[in-house]
Amino acid sequence: MNPVMQLLRSHRSIRKFTDRAVDDGMIQEIVRCGQAAATSSNVQATTVIHVRDAATRRKIARLAGDQQYVVTAGAFLVFCADLDRDRRACAMQGGEFVAGMTEHFIIATIDVALFAQNCAIAAESLDLGICYIGGIRNDPAQVSELLDLPDQVYPVFGFCIGYPAQDPEVKPRLPLSVVLKQGRYQRAHDTAGILAYDEQLRQYYRTRTGGTKESCWTREIKMLLGKESRPHMRGFLKARGFSMR
Amino acid sequence: MNPVMQLLRSHRSIRKFTDRAVDDGMIQEIVRCGQAAATSSNVQATTVIHVRDAATRRKIARLAGDQQYVVTAGAFLVFCADLDRDRRACAMQGGEFVAGMTEHFIIATIDVALFAQNCAIAAESLDLGICYIGGIRNDPAQVSELLDLPDQVYPVFGFCIGYPAQDPEVKPRLPLSVVLKQGRYQRAHDTAGILAYDEQLRQYYRTRTGGTKESCWTREIKMLLGKESRPHMRGFLKARGFSMR
Repeated sequence: MNPVMQLLRSHRSIRKFTDRAVDDGMIQEIVRCGQAAATSSNVQATTVIHVRDAATRRKIARLAGDQQYVVTAGAFLVFCADLDRDRRACAMQGGEFVAGMTEHFIIATIDVALFAQNCAIAAESLDLGICYIGGIRNDPAQVSELLDLPDQVYPVFGFCIGYPAQDPEVKPRLPLSVVLKQGRYQRAHDTAGILAYDEQLRQYYRTRTGGTKESCWTREIKMLLGKESRPHMRGFLKARGFSMR
Repeated sequence: MNPVMQLLRSHRSIRKFTDRAVDDGMIQEIVRCGQAAATSSNVQATTVIHVRDAATRRKIARLAGDQQYVVTAGAFLVFCADLDRDRRACAMQGGEFVAGMTEHFIIATIDVALFAQNCAIAAESLDLGICYIGGIRNDPAQVSELLDLPDQVYPVFGFCIGYPAQDPEVKPRLPLSVVLKQGRYQRAHDTAGILAYDEQLRQYYRTRTGGTKESCWTREIKMLLGKESRPHMRGFLKARGFSMR
């Protein structure tokens, strides 16, 4: 395993940061790495907002479910899927952007994630820690208002960056055989792999919480996906021009 | 700039590959790096299909718009957003997966992209080249059939990996100032940046095509987004259980 692969394999979310700021030059270099990721037909549908105002960070931290690291991280970014810039590009050529296509929504969302993951790797290569904040989708309308996002732009996730003040262990993942399929989708051996993983994660939770958390993967998934999740997303997206047709 | 950031900044899609195969052990190591990426609430919604059958690869190459590198690359993977495994996890706990949420669709799509981008970086760190194949969404129903994908699983993109037989230059990106916003979304200086980029990309196309391609970014975007794109996606996703409510 080469050093890059070692870096990739050593990722864990960081939620406690030192006071040390992450300077603007570093953020710029990290975002340049994000820009270098593949982008569907060069559409470049990512816009990054560097949230600088302390009050705004506090508001976002609260609506994201009281995630204090949104406030305490060295820097906080919001990654947006941006089709408004493409709309303007069409207009600059005397054309009209076709709004509301599900495919465009998918393209933009993937673009943002590829971009952000490059930023994550770049940050970690600089000994910074990161944490994705999907919790901003708890109230995407308010986030959009706080950041002046126009129609055709939606906030996909937040992103904390900073110098780690903790050293958590790497979280185990599902067995490779469950995730990597040969030739076609097959489920025959998944259950055994999932049960083995349940046991592994049970140990991980016990160790990490000093025995207070008794859970496993299937249980966590049931609690997460056995109920509606952010049912406002559909209406929010529609209101912002992503009608998903 | 450290070596990891240099690697990230040097990405370009590779579409010509040598005959050299990419062995299974290498694919496994690359996919393990993908697994190490962040995943929303540990949902791990990515399944990778290693497509091995030559006839299947030819069919996918054709439906993806005659992209021959789908056949000629050392290996070809299809990255799937997989909520079926989570559905089974719920069932293993006596629970019922709530299907059709837009939020779950977003979570799964982001999960796949973060995972795949780690695979891209890992592959490039091994001197392999890669190319994302969004073209599989030209006919996602046929791809799903070829790979036996169940409901609650959709093929997000294909992924060619192999030893490069070409050395294309890195494609320029939009100016950083257009993509990275301070504090809030602002458009005031975008037009100047976009016009400068148009000029840069015009030169890039000229150099790359020996003067035969006369285009620029805004023109490419108008041609791409000034028309409907894969209008079947909505219906396809709905039919596979992603009703987007």
